[in-house]
Amino acid sequence: MKISDIGEFGLIERLKDILKSSIIGDDTAPVIVEGKALLLTCDILVQDRHFKLNYPPSAIGWKAISVNVSDVVANGGTPLYSLVSLTLPDMEVGFVEGLYHGIKKACEFYGCEVVGGNVSKGEKLSIDVFMLGKAERFVGRSGAKRGDGIFVSGTLGDSRAGLELLLMEKGHYEDFELKLIEKHIRPTARIDLPKHISKYANASMDISDGLASDAWKLARASKVKLSLFSEKIPVSKELAVFCKKHGKNPLEYALSGGEDYELLFTHKPEKLNPFLSMVQIGIVEEGEVVCLDNVLLEPSGFDHFRML
Amino acid sequence: MKISDIGEFGLIERLKDILKSSIIGDDTAPVIVEGKALLLTCDILVQDRHFKLNYPPSAIGWKAISVNVSDVVANGGTPLYSLVSLTLPDMEVGFVEGLYHGIKKACEFYGCEVVGGNVSKGEKLSIDVFMLGKAERFVGRSGAKRGDGIFVSGTLGDSRAGLELLLMEKGHYEDFELKLIEKHIRPTARIDLPKHISKYANASMDISDGLASDAWKLARASKVKLSLFSEKIPVSKELAVFCKKHGKNPLEYALSGGEDYELLFTHKPEKLNPFLSMVQIGIVEEGEVVCLDNVLLEPSGFDHFRML
Repeated sequence: MKISDIGEFGLIERLKDILKSSIIGDDTAPVIVEGKALLLTCDILVQDRHFKLNYPPSAIGWKAISVNVSDVVANGGTPLYSLVSLTLPDMEVGFVEGLYHGIKKACEFYGCEVVGGNVSKGEKLSIDVFMLGKAERFVGRSGAKRGDGIFVSGTLGDSRAGLELLLMEKGHYEDFELKLIEKHIRPTARIDLPKHISKYANASMDISDGLASDAWKLARASKVKLSLFSEKIPVSKELAVFCKKHGKNPLEYALSGGEDYELLFTHKPEKLNPFLSMVQIGIVEEGEVVCLDNVLLEPSGFDHFRML
Repeated sequence: MKISDIGEFGLIERLKDILKSSIIGDDTAPVIVEGKALLLTCDILVQDRHFKLNYPPSAIGWKAISVNVSDVVANGGTPLYSLVSLTLPDMEVGFVEGLYHGIKKACEFYGCEVVGGNVSKGEKLSIDVFMLGKAERFVGRSGAKRGDGIFVSGTLGDSRAGLELLLMEKGHYEDFELKLIEKHIRPTARIDLPKHISKYANASMDISDGLASDAWKLARASKVKLSLFSEKIPVSKELAVFCKKHGKNPLEYALSGGEDYELLFTHKPEKLNPFLSMVQIGIVEEGEVVCLDNVLLEPSGFDHFRML
């Protein structure tokens, strides 16, 4: 039996069974060390899967840190320290330095610090980042309660549109197109939200595989029904223009785009803070499914091993 | 300028300059979180560089954990929690499960726990492990004092002999050969030593690149001269037999073998504990070099990018 027979998530389930850990399953692992709640996470960017070598190296470094910060803030935490494990071919030193300039910039922006790492030779470039954070209160995926409002931050679907634009390799890009590309190659983690999440949210995760797929993960972990409303799902002006131009449906991008690094969380509807980037897109009900406009939503996410 | 022009260590120096961190440079990064001293480290095993796919998968998993525990104990710490980041091709699920059985066994042995990780698709298998430990007192490379004795644990050079035996692909191996192979594919981190190191050592590191190379790193970090005596360097009976059979010099293996994961540390000579696996191999003097039997020792270590 090959990994492609059971998929990435099937494999992870089997590996969790071996480890018998009760902790695994959220964006970060919450551990208590000497009475303090710490969050551990790691996320990797692999050449030709998550980026191409013609991307600006500083953007790759920025994104490598951002995707990890996104996991930490999704659980209501603050990033503290990071290690960077590079696997790289014999490439230009200037490229690796550019990568590190992006890493350094991101750390300054997010208020964390790279304190070590590792360099190893390999055939393709990969940047594996490990991050340690702390939280007043850890918020995972499994606590959503009936009656909670379902919220997302920012707008969804931009990153996939940006990726598609990049792959078109056009000689000239319009402004709205550059904005979408920027969302793909240089995403920003929602460091404006962890305090709100840590204080009010019953469940929270980041949207890295697409809303449809990630909503299912939250519904299953919390054993609840997520009832979403399509007209509430936030879409940017740029994505709307892009979709109009190319005859596409923005909702499709928002549901299955992936790599937006926005947050999906639930809490009492009245805790919505209009000064924060958040909108209510649904309500938590009894059940264990995800519905969109009262119709069952297929979990159309991304599986690294299934979509080969 | 390519990485091979400046080598792995030259690259690391440039990246450290960009980050401007005062912490980077030891086996682990010591950080203080809410008043507690924590150690962070990561180390990767890459297919065809650190192991071959015909090794027992559980041994690869065991080694991936062991090399990280080795970094933690080298700095006087105890391993606590770990994340495992796998990059893997579409391979047999049974192989990956075997790998995780080895990881689980190692964690049980060392008293730590895997609390999360990441799975990503790539062309070759790599296992990147991140580890969080704690220490009563962090001991790095830079504190060696004149008059200290220089100590190593265990025996040196076995791992390289084991690797050479493996590469011979013999149909039958003798018992002493199997012991050397075992030292290479299933090294054990020195969890018997961190308490002693944390209590007495002025400087400490693990020997992963070979004694000659690693002794230079300690000498430079501490700005001292390490004066080593060849007849004191511990060599196993198995390595002696191997070298006699193949017309090799055991000292050569002990000095530049690498991957032994024994510890190199310094403290007052009278703190030697005869109940622990440690022998004095030299003394710390004024200067910033490494000498063997009063002759300058070449740092004949391993550089991933130079030895292509």
